[in-house]
Amino acid sequence: MIKATEKAYRIIRDIQKRARKRKTPLLKPKWPVILLRTPKGWKGVHKYHGHLVEGSFHSHGIPVEHPKKDPDALETIEKWLKSYKIEELVDEKGRPKEEITKFIPKGKYRIGMNRHAIGGNFYKPLKLPALSKYAVKVSKFGSIFKKNTTEAAPMIRDVIKHNGKNFRVFCPDEIESNKLDAVFEVTKRAYQWPIKKTDEDLAPEGRVMEILSEHTLQGWLMGYLLTGRHGLLISYEAFANIVNSMVDQYAKFLKQHFDVSWRKPVASAIYLLSSVGWRQDHNGFSHQNPSFVSNILQKHGEFCQVYYPSDTNSLLAAFEETMKKKDSICVIVAGKRDLPQWLTLKEAREQAKKGIGIWEWVGGKEATKNPDVVLASAGDYITQEALYAVKLCKLLTPELKIRYVNISELTSICLGDFFRSDDPRSSATEKGVNKYFTEDRPVVFNYHGYINDIEHILWPYVTSDRFSIHGYREKGSTTTPFDMKVANEVSFYHIAMDLIERGAKFNKSIARKKPAIMKTLNKKIREHQKYIEKYGDYPEEIKAIRW
Amino acid sequence: MIKATEKAYRIIRDIQKRARKRKTPLLKPKWPVILLRTPKGWKGVHKYHGHLVEGSFHSHGIPVEHPKKDPDALETIEKWLKSYKIEELVDEKGRPKEEITKFIPKGKYRIGMNRHAIGGNFYKPLKLPALSKYAVKVSKFGSIFKKNTTEAAPMIRDVIKHNGKNFRVFCPDEIESNKLDAVFEVTKRAYQWPIKKTDEDLAPEGRVMEILSEHTLQGWLMGYLLTGRHGLLISYEAFANIVNSMVDQYAKFLKQHFDVSWRKPVASAIYLLSSVGWRQDHNGFSHQNPSFVSNILQKHGEFCQVYYPSDTNSLLAAFEETMKKKDSICVIVAGKRDLPQWLTLKEAREQAKKGIGIWEWVGGKEATKNPDVVLASAGDYITQEALYAVKLCKLLTPELKIRYVNISELTSICLGDFFRSDDPRSSATEKGVNKYFTEDRPVVFNYHGYINDIEHILWPYVTSDRFSIHGYREKGSTTTPFDMKVANEVSFYHIAMDLIERGAKFNKSIARKKPAIMKTLNKKIREHQKYIEKYGDYPEEIKAIRW
Repeated sequence: MIKATEKAYRIIRDIQKRARKRKTPLLKPKWPVILLRTPKGWKGVHKYHGHLVEGSFHSHGIPVEHPKKDPDALETIEKWLKSYKIEELVDEKGRPKEEITKFIPKGKYRIGMNRHAIGGNFYKPLKLPALSKYAVKVSKFGSIFKKNTTEAAPMIRDVIKHNGKNFRVFCPDEIESNKLDAVFEVTKRAYQWPIKKTDEDLAPEGRVMEILSEHTLQGWLMGYLLTGRHGLLISYEAFANIVNSMVDQYAKFLKQHFDVSWRKPVASAIYLLSSVGWRQDHNGFSHQNPSFVSNILQKHGEFCQVYYPSDTNSLLAAFEETMKKKDSICVIVAGKRDLPQWLTLKEAREQAKKGIGIWEWVGGKEATKNPDVVLASAGDYITQEALYAVKLCKLLTPELKIRYVNISELTSICLGDFFRSDDPRSSATEKGVNKYFTEDRPVVFNYHGYINDIEHILWPYVTSDRFSIHGYREKGSTTTPFDMKVANEVSFYHIAMDLIERGAKFNKSIARKKPAIMKTLNKKIREHQKYIEKYGDYPEEIKAIRW
Repeated sequence: MIKATEKAYRIIRDIQKRARKRKTPLLKPKWPVILLRTPKGWKGVHKYHGHLVEGSFHSHGIPVEHPKKDPDALETIEKWLKSYKIEELVDEKGRPKEEITKFIPKGKYRIGMNRHAIGGNFYKPLKLPALSKYAVKVSKFGSIFKKNTTEAAPMIRDVIKHNGKNFRVFCPDEIESNKLDAVFEVTKRAYQWPIKKTDEDLAPEGRVMEILSEHTLQGWLMGYLLTGRHGLLISYEAFANIVNSMVDQYAKFLKQHFDVSWRKPVASAIYLLSSVGWRQDHNGFSHQNPSFVSNILQKHGEFCQVYYPSDTNSLLAAFEETMKKKDSICVIVAGKRDLPQWLTLKEAREQAKKGIGIWEWVGGKEATKNPDVVLASAGDYITQEALYAVKLCKLLTPELKIRYVNISELTSICLGDFFRSDDPRSSATEKGVNKYFTEDRPVVFNYHGYINDIEHILWPYVTSDRFSIHGYREKGSTTTPFDMKVANEVSFYHIAMDLIERGAKFNKSIARKKPAIMKTLNKKIREHQKYIEKYGDYPEEIKAIRW
């Protein structure tokens, strides 16, 4: 063992010396590896009651049971433990002899003094660029369409540019398909060798770690954060689930770390989930799974945030917030296709402070103040439907008073079940929640993911029966984007019908109109079905809708 | 390619011939493998606009974009597609030429005729043994203690024995530590070679597939079920999560299969989760994670069942039910340590019909009929606490009328959100749910897993504010079993306090006693804390409690 270690050490030093001398051509060293193969339970009990222990599965866990009752077992264990000759190593009082203690490292060489094991010791805030450089100019609500990840990508590019060795992007080979390829203007994919002439965007010093293994990426991200740096993991929404169990273990580590006074905070783990289930037009059912968020919400309410930015400026605000936040797990869910732009950067930032906002311009001042019904939404494609539903209601039932609530950060509604009302950290109360949802009006909630997320978030604070929650119901596969929404009943048709249904209970005029409206809208939906079957695309009149 | 295929075929035939001639010694053939390495996008577009497409990442997805707008792209794509010389293969009407069609297999050789691809064609029910052979004799509720998985293991053993090649057990190397080693009385672990003299329970014909890779096991189980056989996957509760994403994809497959009329049902995927979080005394926090169930419940309510047998006889009834059930995903959660036995086999089977039962003997006839408060529980260790809480209440507040509801199959409460009240398959209604939980009494619910599971199951049917749900709150690590329950507030102390708290609202006598009782019980909990810190074990008086 000593020989092997010394040989390996000599090889390492030699490689280092050569590498430090010449910069090019790139050195391609073969690093030494020591392979040590030992029997399982080596040097433990060899045999016991006729079966082999050393080198067999019997040496796992408890190799010899019941020494209290079984004198054979006691003797065997005694013999085994005595084989280590502890008396040669300790004095009569059980203290290690001086010939042992002299090998214990002193001062900064002690293992507990390794500052690198505590990333917080090295934590440096990111240098963040001014968001105004990337902001989409929104002069009229919903008037222009943009691809949110494409628009926000230059911000990530500039974070890479300004933060040297303090930031990395981790991605399972999807940067381009998630529309973040702007990062390659300033860096490349990390890759050692061989690099061929025809390869593109590969370099040993690249800041982007791409490998088609979410497990490896999650491991890298954890290590990178815990040694004091910052990182962003980008994934298809449906495939982040693959590492749920690893994220759970990281969260368990964080929970322990909070309780250790000398551990300083580290940067947050940031996940950007793009290529979301609502736009898997070609990939279909297998690529629809919004439950990474569910897993995070269920367990880690105390120190997780889940962002559903409705447009580019909200996405920029989410990036900024998560990159400043420490000791957290942050998930940002953002689509990559054309979407209406709602908020100016100023408005988006203002909402980001609370993660939830009442958009008065949607229903108008009076309706927002005293609504018949509250409409809420979280998610970009889903917010588009919610607002178009309001537009449709204005046409069909202008007397229906609607308050619209936008949720851009999900734990803002309340803080999950971990924060009970008796928890001093909790800012959520029934009263606080009702400030947005009123005391007693019906609420229609259009949600990006599984409706269970909303149910258990709201459970401690509201009575369930006034809420009608729409969300992903595992309907639809390879179909048009609008049909996905129809199949899952999150389309503006469905939301409008639900709003009118609930409004009719408070308003006689709406009650009178209701049957005819329902008939018309249901007919619309049936016609839409026939249309897509005939043309393989959805009607131009729906594509043409603008707020 | 033809040469390689023919060579491989000859080798396979030769191995088969030799194997069929001699039975021993065991043949150890080297099966042929054809390795074909090709450039990515081989024979596609070679180069486009100066960059390599063939053999590079550009050939992934859309190799050449915008042929509608870009004449270069159109020309490139045309040249590429023409390179396949389709005109040599089809006639002027686009029909394949006879020289092609003659190679299409006929009759039973057509790929769609491969009956093995549809497991339902081969489905044979399992031969199930009479449960009475394994039943625990329960003469008095809760009087004896048994290890539930140990007691039920002989049933699994006999299922293996009686079902030849129709059943397998899949396990990540934990059969023994989950206390199911009785199966090795009739079979071994499947293993080819080399088998050493000192190896135990290994054989090529073994029916138990053990490998420390949950992913591999899940893949094997899926293949085994879909080719018409039956299987049981056994895992530590916390580690089943590793394959959540694979189980989701299997569930997605099942959902499609339901819609295909000629696909016949297959056996259910059965998961036994043992070594549960409540008894990870030595492994601690990293081994506590009851969310495999959460993931199943959230998405697959239509065709999943989640069993929480409270004792051995209930576990036997769950095994029997799941082994008969088709086309489902069944999860059974059962501890492996000593637990009180509540039900006779007859009672357990009776309850299994509905998955939920009112245990009149707990609160007594009168209290059960007109309770002040309802107590419900799901889970074995958790049910023990719930019933001991009733015992404590009987001592402290005998006037408190308690109805006890035991939930042995979780989807029995209602059927998850997939079954809305307007779904014809749904049997769950507010009225149906209230039959157990009353119309308006407070309900204290003691639950094995994350409380969110119960919240979203109940959301559509009840008003949330009369429910008080206890469950795993990620508290505690390596500690005593009872302290785990104290830390998570599921202990009989906590449940009793909650019952009395709620009962006090309806009963003046209880309200008067309440302050003194709360003081006493909180003191008990503090003393318990001191005791375990001093002795490293929990008090004998708690260990000695019997119903």
